[in-house]
Amino acid sequence: MAAAPAATTTANAALSFLSCHHNATTRLFLRPTPSITFRSSNNPSFSIKSLSTPTPSPPLTQDSLKKLAADKAVEYVQSGMVLGLGTGSTAAFVVAKLGELLVTGQLTNIVGVPTSKRTQEQAASLNIPLATLDTHPSLDLAIDGADEVDPNLDLVKGRGGALLREKMVEAASDKFVVVVDDSKLVSGLGGSGLAMPVEVVQFCWKYNQIRLQELFKDEGVEAKLRLDGDGKPYVTDNSNYIVDLYFKNPIKDSAAAGKEISALEGVVEHGLFLDMTTAVIIAGKDGVSVKSK
Amino acid sequence: MAAAPAATTTANAALSFLSCHHNATTRLFLRPTPSITFRSSNNPSFSIKSLSTPTPSPPLTQDSLKKLAADKAVEYVQSGMVLGLGTGSTAAFVVAKLGELLVTGQLTNIVGVPTSKRTQEQAASLNIPLATLDTHPSLDLAIDGADEVDPNLDLVKGRGGALLREKMVEAASDKFVVVVDDSKLVSGLGGSGLAMPVEVVQFCWKYNQIRLQELFKDEGVEAKLRLDGDGKPYVTDNSNYIVDLYFKNPIKDSAAAGKEISALEGVVEHGLFLDMTTAVIIAGKDGVSVKSK
Repeated sequence: MAAAPAATTTANAALSFLSCHHNATTRLFLRPTPSITFRSSNNPSFSIKSLSTPTPSPPLTQDSLKKLAADKAVEYVQSGMVLGLGTGSTAAFVVAKLGELLVTGQLTNIVGVPTSKRTQEQAASLNIPLATLDTHPSLDLAIDGADEVDPNLDLVKGRGGALLREKMVEAASDKFVVVVDDSKLVSGLGGSGLAMPVEVVQFCWKYNQIRLQELFKDEGVEAKLRLDGDGKPYVTDNSNYIVDLYFKNPIKDSAAAGKEISALEGVVEHGLFLDMTTAVIIAGKDGVSVKSK
Repeated sequence: MAAAPAATTTANAALSFLSCHHNATTRLFLRPTPSITFRSSNNPSFSIKSLSTPTPSPPLTQDSLKKLAADKAVEYVQSGMVLGLGTGSTAAFVVAKLGELLVTGQLTNIVGVPTSKRTQEQAASLNIPLATLDTHPSLDLAIDGADEVDPNLDLVKGRGGALLREKMVEAASDKFVVVVDDSKLVSGLGGSGLAMPVEVVQFCWKYNQIRLQELFKDEGVEAKLRLDGDGKPYVTDNSNYIVDLYFKNPIKDSAAAGKEISALEGVVEHGLFLDMTTAVIIAGKDGVSVKSK
């Protein structure tokens, strides 16, 4: 596929992002992200290449799209970095790519801080040196997937249940790059109708379920305790429960919502990842694009 | 001892409160708390009686003081109420008194929501009907002790390790009455030099220890993981750790501090109980007094 360096204005980029959401066949334009240095590029100022082609090509599989986007995300990685390693199917492609680049010597001296046991195991199997926030409290870059991305690059995350560890690691990172396919783009958080998780202590979880239901009555929410395969309450890595919120309408003010949820005693964390994202890499039918604020 | 109905202005009450802190021998004045209805009183508008005497009397033991204050607190209880039952030595006197009043029939039809297993066991042994927030999400009144009380009636609580459950129950109560002896009065929270607890998830607790240390560097804080008797990390009822903060100087802005602590990912709860208190019952050498906002 031809690499088309298509620099646009921020306004155009925002428009293309919105278009993408409303019409998946619209071609995504790319714009440079000057604040971010790329590991390898012939032209650093236009380092994100569009993988779109002007002529139709056979649609890529979901996994191929995820891999393309993951490879693009890894361009943000430089030797010597301390890296937050996300959790989920897209993040797994990122970790796999990092392993490859270590083997070929294109990357050296990186340290990974995994956000879940699963990621930790994958990274260890690829001989990626690992650490924790306890020894590395400041990270250069984190890369992870997301469940929803809104036009402001705010996210819903944590459907996989690792929201607390993900948020801890990603909030500790100088830069946070999100990798998604375009099915994750929403006009407002909660807009997918899928779960927005809230991690709560087990003690009186029903009380918090009632309060969460009450908090979002304007949006028309259904607050449900997450269950495991056996119909028992799902227990997080931190021994807590998860109350999943299913919104009928998107959250009106996600910043206010985040604060209100956090203020409930017994809430440990929530899946709104606000004002954290540096850039989003979006894989669509026609290729990969990047959006940053 | 003579009951001396000593109504003062709010300003006087505040002054006496401050005086009490700086000079424990200063006599405490009492003022009515018109917004609060007492269960039994000959004169509802001046229902809190001073137990002070103008002439010196033998100093009461610490336990006698606690019992006096606890008895006073129970005057806030009325039949039919849903009550939050605190944890600790003073709260235990409250629960004991409630048990007595149930036996004599002076109180009927109350339901207790305990804040700890210990309190639950004590209340059950006294045949106090018990419930949880799950079934009783709105309480009429909670009564509990505190580790520190500042002139604004804001509190440090949780040295006993039950801060999360206490805060959940007490925040759910219409009224929250605090019972302390005057050694707990401070000019600013953290001012006792004793622990202000922060409950954190076990995952990367050192990272949060570092961040808490950093957050209060102006106050000169020492952040220490709480250990149990065997030198292992103390684990809360919610499977979390506690990082205790020891301040060299009182916290400058406790409202801001509370928000900043809560904003740290992995912090589950903290021991600052702000803007929650309805009234504080203070036992001192010279008797019992009440302060409310």
